[in-house]
Amino acid sequence: MTAYKNMTAAERAAEYAKVSAHYEELKSLGLKLNMARGKPGTAQLDLVSDIFDLMHDPADYVSDGIDVRNYGEMSGLPAAKRLFAEILGCKPEQVFVGGNASLQLMYDTIAKAYTHGLLRSPKPWCKEETVKWLCPAPGYDRHFLITEHFGFELITIPMTPAGPDMDAVEEAVQDPAVKGMWCVPKYSNPEGIIYSEDTIRRIASLQAAAPDFLVMWDNAYCIHEFEGEYVPFPDILAICEENGNPDRVFEFASTSKVTLPGAGISCFACSEANMKHMEKLLTVQTISFDKVNQQRHVLYLQNKAHALELMGRHAAIMGPKFRAVLEALDREIAPLDIASWCRPKGGYFVSLNAMPGTAKRTWQLCKEAGVVMTGAGATYPYGKDPQDSNLRIAPSLPPVAELEQAMEVLCTCLKLSALEVLGV
Amino acid sequence: MTAYKNMTAAERAAEYAKVSAHYEELKSLGLKLNMARGKPGTAQLDLVSDIFDLMHDPADYVSDGIDVRNYGEMSGLPAAKRLFAEILGCKPEQVFVGGNASLQLMYDTIAKAYTHGLLRSPKPWCKEETVKWLCPAPGYDRHFLITEHFGFELITIPMTPAGPDMDAVEEAVQDPAVKGMWCVPKYSNPEGIIYSEDTIRRIASLQAAAPDFLVMWDNAYCIHEFEGEYVPFPDILAICEENGNPDRVFEFASTSKVTLPGAGISCFACSEANMKHMEKLLTVQTISFDKVNQQRHVLYLQNKAHALELMGRHAAIMGPKFRAVLEALDREIAPLDIASWCRPKGGYFVSLNAMPGTAKRTWQLCKEAGVVMTGAGATYPYGKDPQDSNLRIAPSLPPVAELEQAMEVLCTCLKLSALEVLGV
Repeated sequence: MTAYKNMTAAERAAEYAKVSAHYEELKSLGLKLNMARGKPGTAQLDLVSDIFDLMHDPADYVSDGIDVRNYGEMSGLPAAKRLFAEILGCKPEQVFVGGNASLQLMYDTIAKAYTHGLLRSPKPWCKEETVKWLCPAPGYDRHFLITEHFGFELITIPMTPAGPDMDAVEEAVQDPAVKGMWCVPKYSNPEGIIYSEDTIRRIASLQAAAPDFLVMWDNAYCIHEFEGEYVPFPDILAICEENGNPDRVFEFASTSKVTLPGAGISCFACSEANMKHMEKLLTVQTISFDKVNQQRHVLYLQNKAHALELMGRHAAIMGPKFRAVLEALDREIAPLDIASWCRPKGGYFVSLNAMPGTAKRTWQLCKEAGVVMTGAGATYPYGKDPQDSNLRIAPSLPPVAELEQAMEVLCTCLKLSALEVLGV
Repeated sequence: MTAYKNMTAAERAAEYAKVSAHYEELKSLGLKLNMARGKPGTAQLDLVSDIFDLMHDPADYVSDGIDVRNYGEMSGLPAAKRLFAEILGCKPEQVFVGGNASLQLMYDTIAKAYTHGLLRSPKPWCKEETVKWLCPAPGYDRHFLITEHFGFELITIPMTPAGPDMDAVEEAVQDPAVKGMWCVPKYSNPEGIIYSEDTIRRIASLQAAAPDFLVMWDNAYCIHEFEGEYVPFPDILAICEENGNPDRVFEFASTSKVTLPGAGISCFACSEANMKHMEKLLTVQTISFDKVNQQRHVLYLQNKAHALELMGRHAAIMGPKFRAVLEALDREIAPLDIASWCRPKGGYFVSLNAMPGTAKRTWQLCKEAGVVMTGAGATYPYGKDPQDSNLRIAPSLPPVAELEQAMEVLCTCLKLSALEVLGV
């Protein structure tokens, strides 16, 4: 195969005719395939459904002397704190264990900064003229949406293979209106990048003009390898403390992709001073989160080593799906030189950069052929990818056979939209 | 026994000596008893713990074709909506099913009004000069705290045996800064009052100056009789609609005192227009609540009739506790004419009005003798009871034998503090 840009017009016209015919064939199959969201597939759900077989013995209702079935323990069961602390490498007293969704804890953190202010805020953010927020992109649309929702001005920070472009970040935080940034430090959504040690240290030691600069550290994929060995990561809380910024960071994690999405448990971790401040605010909002489900998770996951073992079984399901995606791209697209992509070893996504100006068109063509993907542009602030290039592939939900079909559609659409731009 | 006020000074001195001696005896027992919170007792928790024996069969994970273990269905499982709709008498499409705490849904409703505004708000409440809020009192301290937390000015509305004093409410809502009110329409916390039909209709038809006047209708005890038959209640949503104010009310309920406190499910119900508005805001906050627990509750409670049957079994545990409280008061306090109290048939509390100026002192004496009660004043806005009279008794947690001891302490302390005020 020849790269499209090296083809003559006649060759491209011939290729276009061929690819169009194949697209029509695929369209006629009436497919209904979904690669839009990081939803675990049924095999993964079945893998962990024995979690429901716990909680039979009356002794199971008691944890550190606490009857988990009653009100109380607002900040979570001590045993659940210990579990998350071991996984994250921080101290149990730095952990707040919440309900079924870390997204909700993230929203609440920002919402409380907005309505009441953080520990070091001169005033609630709703009383500020302007709040600006750093969004490394491509990134997670739901992150960006939260900060957009509160009227913050979103500033795009380019991603590098080592994490957010720290030169850009260091410059941006000179502005006191810049109040924080989103980070997915391990297997970033969507590129699967692991922040380098240097990036992490530069984030922890940022000289931010805002006294309440907030790093939202979403460690969503902290134990989520699907290829190769578990990759250790540093404790961001300790690094911030070492660098004189102990109250800068809130770290988030959940078991949504360890046990069950929407029925797992979540946590945030922060300095003890931050914890005191947040507990004072959170006690107005709730009496306690679901400690029965926290206890169920403590009994099921037991400890980090046992959780990693379970993650190995998830990897056995996820690995083949990611390989199917990469093999299709390597085979069908690489020789044509019309797109590039990441090769993550963990997380839930493959980030694809199509030829500039073709992402939306590719998405539309896929949709018309029955393949749903995350909206083009969604990985950028305000849903606007300045290059119209990035597409996020989420291979976790469909079984491999369906995924291969979906990738055939995607590759065909990438070809068509590239040919349209190059001219046929 | 003679009423204290009819005693001579000498008689009171003798009584004081006798009661003091008894108090010292009780104190020396080193009791540790808790009547502070509406926490179910262990017998109630055990009663419902067979709820954990559900969710075994793979068919149990599927509800209306939805795999309850995965992401999605932000507003709740249709089957859980139907269950709450049947209990509340509204339509399933008016119900949003959330997580383990209706308090959190209430907080979120107020928080969203504050940060973004309600459907009919001219602007977010954080942009208003002043927000005022009506608090029928005695009432629930956690309600008052939420509205205090957002800086609202709390206005006390007296309670009558038919609910909030509607003359006072009708006058107050002439002020456009008055944005809403708290209501516990059935077995109000703490008095156990059921709002009359007339009260309910007057609330639904209020001519409020604020276009976004919000009635927070916390139907916490809607099926929570412990004495006598189930008492039906009207559908507040329909009544508001009939009166031309369909978007005025958010109703809340939960299974915290049906199944498990802190591990149950909760809901809010509102007009479909409100629902659309709230879903738009909530979708930024969460992907979905815990649908596995929703499904567990659907399987366990089944329908209203079956839930009422379960409530009958709770009543068999709760009834004797309330009778123990009332019997102690009738026997020890009634003849002395130093306090009055309600005789509720449902809910979780007995509201006691001690002699004005003695509630705090009584609470302190109880505490020193090892009996913890809800702080005196807590039932009033800002924790300040102008009469220093109201005490909330929560008899659900201790077993009957302990409760009898605790009531002996309380009655003794009521006597002491009354005698101190009357002069000995």
